[in-house]
Amino acid sequence: MSANTATLTLHCADVKGIVFHVSRFIYELGGNIIDAQQHSETIDDRFFMRVFFDTGGISRTRREIHEGLAELAARYGMETRLSFSDERKRMAIMVSKYDHCLYDLLLRHQYGEINADTALIVSNHNDLEHVAANFRVPFVCVPVSADTRAESETRVLELFRTHHVDFVVMARYMQILTPLFIDAYTHRIINVHHGFLPAFKGAKPYHQAYEHGVKLIGATSHYATADLDMGPIIEQETIRVSHAHSPNDLVALGRDVERKVLSTAVQAHADDRIMVYRRRTIVFR
Amino acid sequence: MSANTATLTLHCADVKGIVFHVSRFIYELGGNIIDAQQHSETIDDRFFMRVFFDTGGISRTRREIHEGLAELAARYGMETRLSFSDERKRMAIMVSKYDHCLYDLLLRHQYGEINADTALIVSNHNDLEHVAANFRVPFVCVPVSADTRAESETRVLELFRTHHVDFVVMARYMQILTPLFIDAYTHRIINVHHGFLPAFKGAKPYHQAYEHGVKLIGATSHYATADLDMGPIIEQETIRVSHAHSPNDLVALGRDVERKVLSTAVQAHADDRIMVYRRRTIVFR
Amino acid sequence: MSANTATLTLHCADVKGIVFHVSRFIYELGGNIIDAQQHSETIDDRFFMRVFFDTGGISRTRREIHEGLAELAARYGMETRLSFSDERKRMAIMVSKYDHCLYDLLLRHQYGEINADTALIVSNHNDLEHVAANFRVPFVCVPVSADTRAESETRVLELFRTHHVDFVVMARYMQILTPLFIDAYTHRIINVHHGFLPAFKGAKPYHQAYEHGVKLIGATSHYATADLDMGPIIEQETIRVSHAHSPNDLVALGRDVERKVLSTAVQAHADDRIMVYRRRTIVFR
Amino acid sequence: MSANTATLTLHCADVKGIVFHVSRFIYELGGNIIDAQQHSETIDDRFFMRVFFDTGGISRTRREIHEGLAELAARYGMETRLSFSDERKRMAIMVSKYDHCLYDLLLRHQYGEINADTALIVSNHNDLEHVAANFRVPFVCVPVSADTRAESETRVLELFRTHHVDFVVMARYMQILTPLFIDAYTHRIINVHHGFLPAFKGAKPYHQAYEHGVKLIGATSHYATADLDMGPIIEQETIRVSHAHSPNDLVALGRDVERKVLSTAVQAHADDRIMVYRRRTIVFR
Repeated sequence: MSANTATLTLHCADVKGIVFHVSRFIYELGGNIIDAQQHSETIDDRFFMRVFFDTGGISRTRREIHEGLAELAARYGMETRLSFSDERKRMAIMVSKYDHCLYDLLLRHQYGEINADTALIVSNHNDLEHVAANFRVPFVCVPVSADTRAESETRVLELFRTHHVDFVVMARYMQILTPLFIDAYTHRIINVHHGFLPAFKGAKPYHQAYEHGVKLIGATSHYATADLDMGPIIEQETIRVSHAHSPNDLVALGRDVERKVLSTAVQAHADDRIMVYRRRTIVFR
Repeated sequence: MSANTATLTLHCADVKGIVFHVSRFIYELGGNIIDAQQHSETIDDRFFMRVFFDTGGISRTRREIHEGLAELAARYGMETRLSFSDERKRMAIMVSKYDHCLYDLLLRHQYGEINADTALIVSNHNDLEHVAANFRVPFVCVPVSADTRAESETRVLELFRTHHVDFVVMARYMQILTPLFIDAYTHRIINVHHGFLPAFKGAKPYHQAYEHGVKLIGATSHYATADLDMGPIIEQETIRVSHAHSPNDLVALGRDVERKVLSTAVQAHADDRIMVYRRRTIVFR
Repeated sequence: MSANTATLTLHCADVKGIVFHVSRFIYELGGNIIDAQQHSETIDDRFFMRVFFDTGGISRTRREIHEGLAELAARYGMETRLSFSDERKRMAIMVSKYDHCLYDLLLRHQYGEINADTALIVSNHNDLEHVAANFRVPFVCVPVSADTRAESETRVLELFRTHHVDFVVMARYMQILTPLFIDAYTHRIINVHHGFLPAFKGAKPYHQAYEHGVKLIGATSHYATADLDMGPIIEQETIRVSHAHSPNDLVALGRDVERKVLSTAVQAHADDRIMVYRRRTIVFR
Repeated sequence: MSANTATLTLHCADVKGIVFHVSRFIYELGGNIIDAQQHSETIDDRFFMRVFFDTGGISRTRREIHEGLAELAARYGMETRLSFSDERKRMAIMVSKYDHCLYDLLLRHQYGEINADTALIVSNHNDLEHVAANFRVPFVCVPVSADTRAESETRVLELFRTHHVDFVVMARYMQILTPLFIDAYTHRIINVHHGFLPAFKGAKPYHQAYEHGVKLIGATSHYATADLDMGPIIEQETIRVSHAHSPNDLVALGRDVERKVLSTAVQAHADDRIMVYRRRTIVFR
């Protein structure tokens, strides 16, 4: 992907001519649309758009572009977000002791599948330091206990500022975050739940699934919100199981699904393909 | 499939030698095992077995075979069920106004995919009488209202007796059955729920799914029990959806999944491949 | 879906401003874009676009709209196609003796899932006349033999003209069409092949699959071309199988996949969501 | 899994009483069957069986058990294989420069998902030495050129003998093996092909898939035979793609499928769940 591209996402009331106005804005800048996607939420009469365009032919400064966009947005009541591909997002990964999601993220990053840089890895344990070392990513251990949760989170937020973190991936981080922490990165903390939400919320979802004798298990990636396990869903996947699988087998099978849904969500977030509206996501492909 | 086969299913405490004792029983009868499957439920220390065997070489009477089996069962504390393939099961289908599951069952029956006969179709409306006529299956309309539920169910149970019904398929039958009715066919009434249970129990699951912004929808077939939508799950399947699907789209996509999970459950039941233990099913393939 | 919509599809060399020019054309007409999708074929430097728009606010005549579009197309070297939703496409279905794809199409049509009318059913046998009768669709039997192929095809093409047929669905029609017939409906004849093309071309694909011991079987829908089984692929799907499935089992499992891929292709064609470029399709969702 | 188990696999002509004779053999030894699976190949009239049993109650020596089995096998013309779970298989992994399959194998081994030990990693390049080092597995670089193929293979076979290698995994090893090498490990070399065999044999399958405009891509794991890419298939999987995916995108998507089908095949081989008969596999689950 060329460094000379940008992604504009926006949503507004669904009135006539939005595609025309947005494409004119980009055309008059000198940009060239490579891909554009829309979605009309008919129930709410809301229009969503993502435009991915080549900026090679644009002679304005970024300040001018942002100003022009602000004007357009004001005229049509748009909420907009514009990001340039040479301003790569910086990702923090939070882990505890499970390594399967961490490996999957680091390997996909290495293959160029994730459009972001890995700023650092934060953990409440030091078990996975060697993985970070192998991939040459900074690793910081910030222990957490019930008594020290506030200080720990403050320390982590400081680290994020220092490392210019844009978004956070909870790669099976086994600690509950406070609303204060979550509010600092609204719709920028991606979590994976090892259950097919909204079924099996909470702890030990694979054991719950076994007890119910379900024939499919699943995993869900979503944005973390104050309401635990109920944030906007980004991606879900299921896998077929049978009576022959013990709870431990379900845990093993679940690892594959967990790493897949988390990485897919991270890729979409890094590409600015996700928009959140109310409690739902629009995920452009 | 030859008429000269039989299926034995059994479960018992998991002690040494069960496979040996069962295979000796069949060998000494003169039967030949075509397929045998086992499952050990290690948590409950329970052993499940299904044996499908050729009865062509057996010279004993069925009464003698059943007596021999009763003796074996008593010795090892087995619960057993034996069915001969020339005693085909008779299936009743209950419908209301939706025809997609009904057509799927009738077509699969016609293709020889369901190892049972269609005894009759019962409906609380007469909308689908023409479908029954096209496939030349008896159709009886038994209207239901809140006041007449008891009489209606009595009438249906009488019809089932008259038509020698062995098991019942609720092919989107939109009435709640009373415990009395369900108890008459314990683990022999197969229902389809248009949701990925245990999420989205109850009414309008596709609208619930839309509200939650889920990325997969599903359907579940299960045995009807007094505890609505919580009977032992037989089969589940999911299908990928996105923000672009309206609740109506989800209903349309759901039809495919509903008919598939219901027909798969009916095939398994007709083949004696399902065993129920506590709240879960063992479904041999 | 409102009657007052239209779908414009186009492709052209990928130059700056296409989205802008097209959206301006529609804006100036008074149309309102509901959905627009693009695709850039970077290898061929080709741009594809589908615009679905509300025509309620347009005061020009259709002749004027077509003239305006022709002008736009000439300026940018576009190949365009414009269809109005009140000019519903008319579909002919060709069958032989298998009914599973036919039922699936007729039922989905009845549920409103296919955006076209069923003009007639043509068959080289009369086995399925009763199905046509049940759904009240005209049925014409046109027998075919090696000697009479030319006359038969001429007769079918006449029927298609009489019934204003826009596209043709070969729902397991077991006769080979001549290039003459295919050329009369270029990229408007949808076929289903009961194999995962390009593997298992030709006859008895399920037996070929069994011989190879494959662990998945599939089906493919594609536009018929003179080069048998090699026309542009529209949709494919696979299903898991194992050593335990006989060739006959594969045939039964295949029916589900065949009807699904064929109906999905027909829905896409009826919605003007398919564009063919060289030997490949672009299928917008 | 307890160390005190064993797995017996066998096949023979399908005569009456095989299950009985085998289960009696184990019963009389003092073993307890945990799981038993059968398959009747009706076309060839061949019977396949896998028995997994607890050996805790057996007082005979392994020599005596093998002798007893040889006698049983001789009586019924069985080909048998017996392996004890405390004699863990030793696996060699061959790689070139791609690491995704290697990581997947090493991680699953670490999670206890593969019932074998990793004896060593052999590569024709030294790029992946660091991965081997991180997981503390011996790594040997054996360069290969057209001129030195014979000597290189001799060297590798020596290494395998030294390290007591039971089976070999070609985790995207980009060299062709000679029949001599393959014959040394008949049906014990597991390869992954990045295509949905038998379509897209040979090189650059993802580019072939793109050219054909397929809507699914796949990968296949199989036993290596002298007939390249045509050995008995063990596992296959497909993933949905569209016109929007470039050949490079297909390569990236393919990595997920490749690692999954290879690891699944390795797990099955390590568990003695695969039997090869003629050109097909029976894979018990």
